[in-house]
Amino acid sequence: MLTMQDALARLTAYWTDQGALVVQPMNTEVGAGTLNPATFLRVLGPEPWKVVYVEPSVRPDDSRYGENPNRLQTHTQLQVILKPDPGNPQELYLGSLTAIGIDVAAHDVRFVEDNWASPALGAWGLGWEVWLDGLEITQFTYFQQAGGLNLDPVSVEITYGIERIIMALQDKTHFKEIEYSKGVSYGEVFGQSEYEMSRYYLDDADIEANRKLLDIYAGEAQRMIDAGLPVPAHTFVLKCSQAFNVLDSRGAVSTAERAAEFARMRRLAGEVAGLWVTRRTELGLPLGTVPPLDAARPPATTQTSEDARTLIFEIGTEELPPGELRSARTQLLRLVTEGLAGTRLTHGEIRVFGTPRRLIAVVPAVGAREDDHVRLVRGPKAQQAYAPDGTPTKALEGFVRGQGITVTDVTSVELNGVQHVVFEKQEEGRAAPAVLADVLAQVVSGLRAAKNMRWNDPKLSFSRPIRWLTALWGDDVVPVTVSTLAAGRETRLLRTAATPVIAVESAETFIETLGVNGIVPDHEDRRELIVVGAQDLVYPDGKIDVNGEAALIDQITDLVEQPLPLLGTFDEAYLELPDAVLTTVMRKHQRYLPVRDADGALLPMFVTVANGPVDVELVRTGNEAVLRARYEDAAFFYRADREVPLALLKARLSRLTFTDKLGSMADRADRIAALAQLFASQLGLSSATLDRAAALVKFDLGSQLVTEMTSLAGVMARDYALNAGEDRPVAQAVYEAELPRNTGDALPRSVAGALLSVADRLDVITGLAATVGLPTGSSDPFAVRRAVLGLLAVHRATPALASLDLVDGLAQAAAAQPVPVSPAVLEACADFLAKRLEQALTEEGKPIDRVRAVLAHANRPSTVDVLLAQLDSLAADPGFVAVAAAIQRARRIVPAGTAGSYDPSTLKEPAELALHAAVNAVPDFSDISSFVEATRGLVEPLNTFFDEVFVMADDPALRAARLGLLAKVRDLGEGLVDWTHLRLQ
Amino acid sequence: MLTMQDALARLTAYWTDQGALVVQPMNTEVGAGTLNPATFLRVLGPEPWKVVYVEPSVRPDDSRYGENPNRLQTHTQLQVILKPDPGNPQELYLGSLTAIGIDVAAHDVRFVEDNWASPALGAWGLGWEVWLDGLEITQFTYFQQAGGLNLDPVSVEITYGIERIIMALQDKTHFKEIEYSKGVSYGEVFGQSEYEMSRYYLDDADIEANRKLLDIYAGEAQRMIDAGLPVPAHTFVLKCSQAFNVLDSRGAVSTAERAAEFARMRRLAGEVAGLWVTRRTELGLPLGTVPPLDAARPPATTQTSEDARTLIFEIGTEELPPGELRSARTQLLRLVTEGLAGTRLTHGEIRVFGTPRRLIAVVPAVGAREDDHVRLVRGPKAQQAYAPDGTPTKALEGFVRGQGITVTDVTSVELNGVQHVVFEKQEEGRAAPAVLADVLAQVVSGLRAAKNMRWNDPKLSFSRPIRWLTALWGDDVVPVTVSTLAAGRETRLLRTAATPVIAVESAETFIETLGVNGIVPDHEDRRELIVVGAQDLVYPDGKIDVNGEAALIDQITDLVEQPLPLLGTFDEAYLELPDAVLTTVMRKHQRYLPVRDADGALLPMFVTVANGPVDVELVRTGNEAVLRARYEDAAFFYRADREVPLALLKARLSRLTFTDKLGSMADRADRIAALAQLFASQLGLSSATLDRAAALVKFDLGSQLVTEMTSLAGVMARDYALNAGEDRPVAQAVYEAELPRNTGDALPRSVAGALLSVADRLDVITGLAATVGLPTGSSDPFAVRRAVLGLLAVHRATPALASLDLVDGLAQAAAAQPVPVSPAVLEACADFLAKRLEQALTEEGKPIDRVRAVLAHANRPSTVDVLLAQLDSLAADPGFVAVAAAIQRARRIVPAGTAGSYDPSTLKEPAELALHAAVNAVPDFSDISSFVEATRGLVEPLNTFFDEVFVMADDPALRAARLGLLAKVRDLGEGLVDWTHLRLQ
Repeated sequence: MLTMQDALARLTAYWTDQGALVVQPMNTEVGAGTLNPATFLRVLGPEPWKVVYVEPSVRPDDSRYGENPNRLQTHTQLQVILKPDPGNPQELYLGSLTAIGIDVAAHDVRFVEDNWASPALGAWGLGWEVWLDGLEITQFTYFQQAGGLNLDPVSVEITYGIERIIMALQDKTHFKEIEYSKGVSYGEVFGQSEYEMSRYYLDDADIEANRKLLDIYAGEAQRMIDAGLPVPAHTFVLKCSQAFNVLDSRGAVSTAERAAEFARMRRLAGEVAGLWVTRRTELGLPLGTVPPLDAARPPATTQTSEDARTLIFEIGTEELPPGELRSARTQLLRLVTEGLAGTRLTHGEIRVFGTPRRLIAVVPAVGAREDDHVRLVRGPKAQQAYAPDGTPTKALEGFVRGQGITVTDVTSVELNGVQHVVFEKQEEGRAAPAVLADVLAQVVSGLRAAKNMRWNDPKLSFSRPIRWLTALWGDDVVPVTVSTLAAGRETRLLRTAATPVIAVESAETFIETLGVNGIVPDHEDRRELIVVGAQDLVYPDGKIDVNGEAALIDQITDLVEQPLPLLGTFDEAYLELPDAVLTTVMRKHQRYLPVRDADGALLPMFVTVANGPVDVELVRTGNEAVLRARYEDAAFFYRADREVPLALLKARLSRLTFTDKLGSMADRADRIAALAQLFASQLGLSSATLDRAAALVKFDLGSQLVTEMTSLAGVMARDYALNAGEDRPVAQAVYEAELPRNTGDALPRSVAGALLSVADRLDVITGLAATVGLPTGSSDPFAVRRAVLGLLAVHRATPALASLDLVDGLAQAAAAQPVPVSPAVLEACADFLAKRLEQALTEEGKPIDRVRAVLAHANRPSTVDVLLAQLDSLAADPGFVAVAAAIQRARRIVPAGTAGSYDPSTLKEPAELALHAAVNAVPDFSDISSFVEATRGLVEPLNTFFDEVFVMADDPALRAARLGLLAKVRDLGEGLVDWTHLRLQ
Repeated sequence: MLTMQDALARLTAYWTDQGALVVQPMNTEVGAGTLNPATFLRVLGPEPWKVVYVEPSVRPDDSRYGENPNRLQTHTQLQVILKPDPGNPQELYLGSLTAIGIDVAAHDVRFVEDNWASPALGAWGLGWEVWLDGLEITQFTYFQQAGGLNLDPVSVEITYGIERIIMALQDKTHFKEIEYSKGVSYGEVFGQSEYEMSRYYLDDADIEANRKLLDIYAGEAQRMIDAGLPVPAHTFVLKCSQAFNVLDSRGAVSTAERAAEFARMRRLAGEVAGLWVTRRTELGLPLGTVPPLDAARPPATTQTSEDARTLIFEIGTEELPPGELRSARTQLLRLVTEGLAGTRLTHGEIRVFGTPRRLIAVVPAVGAREDDHVRLVRGPKAQQAYAPDGTPTKALEGFVRGQGITVTDVTSVELNGVQHVVFEKQEEGRAAPAVLADVLAQVVSGLRAAKNMRWNDPKLSFSRPIRWLTALWGDDVVPVTVSTLAAGRETRLLRTAATPVIAVESAETFIETLGVNGIVPDHEDRRELIVVGAQDLVYPDGKIDVNGEAALIDQITDLVEQPLPLLGTFDEAYLELPDAVLTTVMRKHQRYLPVRDADGALLPMFVTVANGPVDVELVRTGNEAVLRARYEDAAFFYRADREVPLALLKARLSRLTFTDKLGSMADRADRIAALAQLFASQLGLSSATLDRAAALVKFDLGSQLVTEMTSLAGVMARDYALNAGEDRPVAQAVYEAELPRNTGDALPRSVAGALLSVADRLDVITGLAATVGLPTGSSDPFAVRRAVLGLLAVHRATPALASLDLVDGLAQAAAAQPVPVSPAVLEACADFLAKRLEQALTEEGKPIDRVRAVLAHANRPSTVDVLLAQLDSLAADPGFVAVAAAIQRARRIVPAGTAGSYDPSTLKEPAELALHAAVNAVPDFSDISSFVEATRGLVEPLNTFFDEVFVMADDPALRAARLGLLAKVRDLGEGLVDWTHLRLQ
């Protein structure tokens, strides 16, 4: 059996054989190998760097006293940095797995999207988690920024999680059982340390001492920056980070403190990075610089056909994220379509395909060359071309000389009414390959992702690296070159294929060639294979909810090139876990399809989809082990949690800081409870259910499972509450208090739940607005925007809350905050609420004019809904339109500030007297429907009035009375609808 | 070329092949691999442990900005722990050198005594520095204690200094030039860090911040100890250590603070160690326990000779320190002599030999067996043996039954005047091998060193491990067994010999066998080879000062088994360095013999003595490189120092703390200067030379060279002063201020030097007595005892200071201290001075009675010398003896408190009148010579008085007068000599 220490030695040897340096772990605690200066500093600047090292990585937060089988406060990373990107880092990486005895063809090794970012380091990169049969074993990242600086060249970072890899290789279920060296287990060597350091991090570290350490370290870091010494400065930044992590694991860091400390560390790390680059430059870049890659030379090609042939163009990439793949297919279609439209090549219907590793455009019947073409070249005006005697002028002579023709070649035509000398130039159509090469080059450089990265190519940028181009027109290579890439006739198959690179005969056989070799380029084909395969696997015991899991299936479809659905099972005992726990793990963590019986109950099985012809048994076993470990984790917490009385779970909330200024989560839960009960009493909605639910609200945040899987907040509350014998409505209300968790999520169905949900959100909004401010731009660290959207959604969906005024609610929530909330802040909150409502409604497709017309009711969003619905149905009502138009006309005519009162005796004309009578006969109305009814009698008199009465009479008294009458019209519906905004048909 | 990273990988692989675990370096800064818990904690308790790891070791004090070719603030250790001692760790170690391509037979690899101790860890062990051609490349230690706990089993610690080894292997003269990995130099990778961390440690670390860190760390360590968590506690002890080292390198640690911090760390480390052992025991010793070694079985032997044969006994050891080897030879002779004396074996003259690896006893003509022997066995008293009728009693019957004889076998003899029944038992002499086996076993267990250690043997203890026994009597193995060792006929040659173990034919050929194989067992033979060889090598250019270097030559002689003197040279340019610098390095650091020309001037060459048939060129080159590096170091400092004005060097003293309560070294120098000038003015010895020397005194402590080689303090002061243009007498006085540096050292010859020396020592004594107290027991961390001995020596040797009263001097020095010095402390100092003087004088051979008789003059030690000399020459003077005896007699007769006055008119007897006249005629005297002259006239009257006068007359008046007269005699010489102590011949 390969021991852990042998594995470390072999990996190190593998990478040194690839030319890497070996350095030692950092001699101060770090949370990851990335923090070691051999990564953080060395990825900066233009010097090359290739290194491998072990890094015992300390994560105080992961302390579990050594009891959890998979979680350690210190785990072992093996870290590799390749700077520059060698062009084939994934292949090199797979070689390293082979070096430790992993048969990468038999296992399912996958590169699953992962966008890495470290806010504290001002660093980010794009890449993947590498999965071995569903187990995350490596982080693979193209570093784009560090310390806030753009990295050029880009570095490849490969971080192996050694304990996980070894547990998988040695088939162990607890890290302590790992054979660390021959005959000595991991637990025997590190077990005691794991326990004791957990004790320190979780229970015994002195908070005040660590706070002082944090400040001293930050002070030294700053002093060293000021002294121009990035190396010691960086060391102290790392010490800051560790001290912070200790405080965090002791539960001593509030949200706001976290943000402040991250900002401080980011600033320090940024200054360190800048200094490092400066110092290296001053030192003359001791390790030299990375030479730029040469631009590609187009392949020499000859055109072998004069008939129309198929064009295929394949853009080979490293594994694209599913979302980016979807978008890229669309872009590809557009770019190829536009590109071909700009040529004079004939062609058939353009089709595009895509897998994680390739984007393909297929265009049948692309003409061999563009048609020949006559182009009219304009010369001088005829008048200036010939002397009065008809002899050519110097102007004409110059023109013909420039065109390489003679005077006899030109004719004269009228252009824009003026006679010009022109030359009809015969242009030959260019050959297809040449034309296509230009078009396709533009396609490649035109691709853009939502999040783009750079790799070793000096000019390209995309979601993931583009590594090869295959371009064929019929039998001929299309000589596309883009930056360092030149197209050829080779395509790549699965990396584990016997022949990973093969030549393609012709464009016509390309898709077939892929297919023969197992690659399924079409998304729909792959999806079909997955759905059918999965249903087959689970038949007849169960089935996959294809509609319900549609998004997941689409995602899985775009994670593979050659789908191979596999059935796995898990111990029935885990079915004791709540459905949400089981499926969250399957879907979110593992991308497994849950299997249900005819009644919709979960079965102890799952379908995973491997990529390519793996060893099915091996991969199944591996995936089952991963799921088991995850479920074991969850079950461990679940069982422990259920044994804790709810009151005790709730009591733990006082140890969780919400923000430093807004108190603990316990304080927050108390505020929510009080506020919900206040609203209930105002609305006559008080109940014993609400009182009990209010007493419990948020208690599950004190549970271990929710600490681990925060998305289960509320769900677990319901489960634990029922388990503890609470009434079902109470349990439901505590669950619903968390709803909606995101846009489109379920909403509370019970009044008690809705009241708690509303109170929760009002508390968040007012508290944070008063302390850190409302979100601006795209930054919203505390998710205030989401809280507002949830608040609006709940109000709109809960009839019982229709009369609840949210602006009043804000004021009541504000009054309960432990900090003062100024009227200006409250006003800003109300305004923010209205803006979000406007946005939500317009996104739902409501016309902006109508939305704005009723937005004054934003304090009661359900009222807005009612009014909008009425507007919808009445917008075409002629009576409404007439009255509304009259009101708008009146608004235009009547000077601002004119009151809606007048002396009726001054009025004389019948039309004005009729209007006077009608206006004063308008009965009360409360909404738009009743408004329409109420004003139906006004339509006729208004029409007559505007037809017959000249408002601006010379007689001032008369004019005043008429204006007063119109002002009264103007004021109709005031407060109900803002007529200014309303656009009338 | 083997790169540094390859060397680390190969060493790691070598030790893992030997079954070692690999762990990672400590993730907090440590000064050495020993501090890593994989050493410090794992050597404790009964569990086995075998580990190898790299440890970047941080020594802030060694920071040199990366400029010094051999000194780094972070150097790389490779650390190996073997627990238990595998029995052949040296051989395993040599195998590891082979693994990195070192031909251990061609190079001179030596194990040179090194006793390791870490006061801060409460740890110590015995072992060696391993030298490769004179270069220290490894520390090799048998750990005896850690955290104040005895270690059982003992661990072997092997610590490789990687940079040094690689520099030697790669033939580099600066660490930055090391090829770290293929094509990448050490400097390119670590140069910047070396510079910047040096800046932090030497210049930029914030002292207050690091003081706070130290206290916080100590606090957390204590808290974790209290919580019963040794692992985090240990981490914080390490952090304490680093913070302390940072403060130290910033010059912020006073002597007293150092002692206090060491005490704190030692206490914490001790508690950590104790806790660790407790916890491991509670955990059931997860790694098991080390099985004890079996006791040896004696070899089956037959005796093949009945003639007397030679006995040889060889005790094979690992390399003994020269001092212990000397002592062991003496012990061996004594133990064998005593052992044989306890047998009845005949034998010739016993001779003993020894090399670092063997102790040998040779005894010619040892009889084949003991002579037969008659032993008288005593039975019952005759009276009780026979009944009155002559028949045997039960008592007699019991006796004969017990002896297996009959009544007829007994006779009767008188014993102690009583007739007893006896039996003359014929005892056969035992065979030599059996007798010798017992004797030799006692010899082995009887060996003791000044400092003893344990290894893997459960019962033995010695200076270094005993690994084999060779015992032959003639052709036969003497079946000696001691604990786990059994003697055989095999002996071991050099470890690098083609056949390292050979069988010995017979005792008679043993020494020859060794000789044939190159081993020179006799110290004198080896010494001769070295002296003759060395003189040959340097002839005719120079010579070795064999007498002057006698101690060094003796030491070298006992460092080798097969001496091979080699001549090395060094660059003449280094001769610019002071003689003392060059020779200190050669003698003390390298054990090289300096070579001088006919005038005694150093030549640029040296003789080193290799062990065994090495590759001469290789070893010479290696040694030359080592010396060059050391001289380069020294020259670097020397040149730098000489460019600094003396005033600036002196100014640096304010940055050196003497002790926290006694101020800086600058304060101390000021006090010394003022005190010396005060004495000078009191004694009329003031001079411009003194004034200038006083202004400069101790300035060289501010130089880099003295910081490096503290033993050169004073020597460098003279050199730098002359270089700076000071007058020679001034330079000499500044030098002499430091004299004597130890017992037997030179003393000041100039008055100015003596005054400064005395002032220096008075300052030390009073200051430390008042703050930390005078030394008690063997502990004297501040060397106050040495200061006192120096003070006495200077006073005694300097006639000009004869009238200087040291007790007054103490008071004057005390008055200048920044702390109050109480009268009680001053009294204790004076007492301490007197005691040391008494001790010094008796050690010089002065009779204790005379010393005590004049010790009242200890405040002027030179007076004591004068008086003692006079006592020496006058002790036999009959006049003196008579007077002295009379005085002592008078002291006995006269009651205490009797005054020496009387009424002369009361006296009547001629004898008493004569004495009265004589006593009153005694002239003044100032010393013992004049006392003898002055009292010569008393001899006769005293004799007569004691013969004829009965003092205790009945008449009270008469008796009072006589007692008064005698009291006057008694008081003669009072204050000059304390007659009580004086023993008269």
